[in-house]
Amino acid sequence: MKLRQLGEDRLLARLLPRLPSNRTIIAGAGDDCAVVRAPGENKLILLKTDCIVENVHFRSRDNPAAVGWKAMMRPLSDFAAMSGLPQFALITLIAPRHTPVAKIDNLYRGLRRAAARFDVSIVGGETSDTRGPLAISVSVVGFVEKDRWISRRGGKPGDDLFVTGRLGGAAKGKHLRFVPRIVESRWVGQNFRVHAMIDLSDGLGVDLPRLAKASKVGFKIDINALPLAPGAKIDNAISDGEDYELLFAISPRDRKRLETTWRKKFPKVPLTRVGRLFPQSAIRNPKLASGFVHFK
Amino acid sequence: MKLRQLGEDRLLARLLPRLPSNRTIIAGAGDDCAVVRAPGENKLILLKTDCIVENVHFRSRDNPAAVGWKAMMRPLSDFAAMSGLPQFALITLIAPRHTPVAKIDNLYRGLRRAAARFDVSIVGGETSDTRGPLAISVSVVGFVEKDRWISRRGGKPGDDLFVTGRLGGAAKGKHLRFVPRIVESRWVGQNFRVHAMIDLSDGLGVDLPRLAKASKVGFKIDINALPLAPGAKIDNAISDGEDYELLFAISPRDRKRLETTWRKKFPKVPLTRVGRLFPQSAIRNPKLASGFVHFK
Repeated sequence: MKLRQLGEDRLLARLLPRLPSNRTIIAGAGDDCAVVRAPGENKLILLKTDCIVENVHFRSRDNPAAVGWKAMMRPLSDFAAMSGLPQFALITLIAPRHTPVAKIDNLYRGLRRAAARFDVSIVGGETSDTRGPLAISVSVVGFVEKDRWISRRGGKPGDDLFVTGRLGGAAKGKHLRFVPRIVESRWVGQNFRVHAMIDLSDGLGVDLPRLAKASKVGFKIDINALPLAPGAKIDNAISDGEDYELLFAISPRDRKRLETTWRKKFPKVPLTRVGRLFPQSAIRNPKLASGFVHFK
Repeated sequence: MKLRQLGEDRLLARLLPRLPSNRTIIAGAGDDCAVVRAPGENKLILLKTDCIVENVHFRSRDNPAAVGWKAMMRPLSDFAAMSGLPQFALITLIAPRHTPVAKIDNLYRGLRRAAARFDVSIVGGETSDTRGPLAISVSVVGFVEKDRWISRRGGKPGDDLFVTGRLGGAAKGKHLRFVPRIVESRWVGQNFRVHAMIDLSDGLGVDLPRLAKASKVGFKIDINALPLAPGAKIDNAISDGEDYELLFAISPRDRKRLETTWRKKFPKVPLTRVGRLFPQSAIRNPKLASGFVHFK
């Protein structure tokens, strides 16, 4: 059966009852807006939206459940980057009317599984016809304790730079099945004073200069220290993107305790010191565009 | 100049500095998530997302500023439906790389103007390439006092049904320049016990049965009482959709005070009693699908 035979009301009747809910949600999908309880006074609200488009972020033949998974996990990775907890998601699905309903069901299966993995409730959304490629936009709202949110801006000269996991080679399939580092990010934010953090969505070669620019510092990287994914080379680790690992800056005074406790807490997730932040004036060419030359 | 010549970083550098901000916003567009202050304990959070797609919700030749206006005002109309205050917006723009940059600038001009009209801050977003038509998805977060949110579900048998403004003929251009009834909705919610409310986005013939079904009641309409837009006929008022007026249910005990005070408060906005809610058993055919026969 195709979407056009089903119609919007019957599509919603299929999708809505399967959405998980909880007592934080006063009205979920189905009313004009979703209505949810506000967090306590000591919390800040985090907002993020992201989208994936057919033939740009995934291929038409990719497994729809994996595509749905990716659509949800991409914005959740930004919550990891801020040490925040995602809580509510809104999903916009733009799909041609000849899309098989089974494909939509599978996309939503992936979206639901990814949301459930981090206790995120899908509280609303929108569907629209299109004459073009399929696109999914996911907006997520969550919270972080007032004294625990981590921006890109707080990096200090002298800070050690750490990355989680292994970099490179995402296009081989990892980009469709990655798990955002929310658990690791919450833990490190609770136990250490992390000065600045970002998730590596566009690749170390793009995201590290972004963190450095936001922090108004320079950086140096030891390219031989980069943790490489199986089969990946240094160039892949720098330029492929879609790693969805964390990059963070922390005082060298915390280095030893961080490395020791991390190994105990996350024995399967490598944590690697890849470089340091410097005063901008100490780096020969401090401009963002040329931050990249320091990789060479 | 085309989008592909500009690139994402320069596009963002163009768009971000023009976004309005205020002291509720701790980190706006540019970090991994937007960070905003939570409302007080006596408030609930409202969440809504909506999208418009080229050749579905607007034509390629429509004025881009009007298209941006519509993209923002559609989800804001859902805040009106709940008597809530929209506060933060995230914008996802999916556009082919051959789009003229001037068109994007104008789309954002419309989005910004619409947001500014209701003090909504644009705190983040996403841009993506596509091989298909242009699409804009807008997600909005806002608040409502715990004792003041109005759902679709509370309509009671005997309630009067009121609509704001005039219905029909939206396709002639109104759908690109309407102003959501947020001010009127906040006022009526503050001064009256409104049992149920919805915004007329799909037309009275679709949205009234939705309100009745959610409230588990039947309804009758006086079709000769419907307030018609200039040039519109009864069929247009029922079926055209995109009116973005409010439909609400309120006790007949409040009718006189409502009509009198409304005229003083909003002399330019008609308020019309168009029908009543009934017990489901009192309506010959209580099924939703045939709710529509009561219009005939």
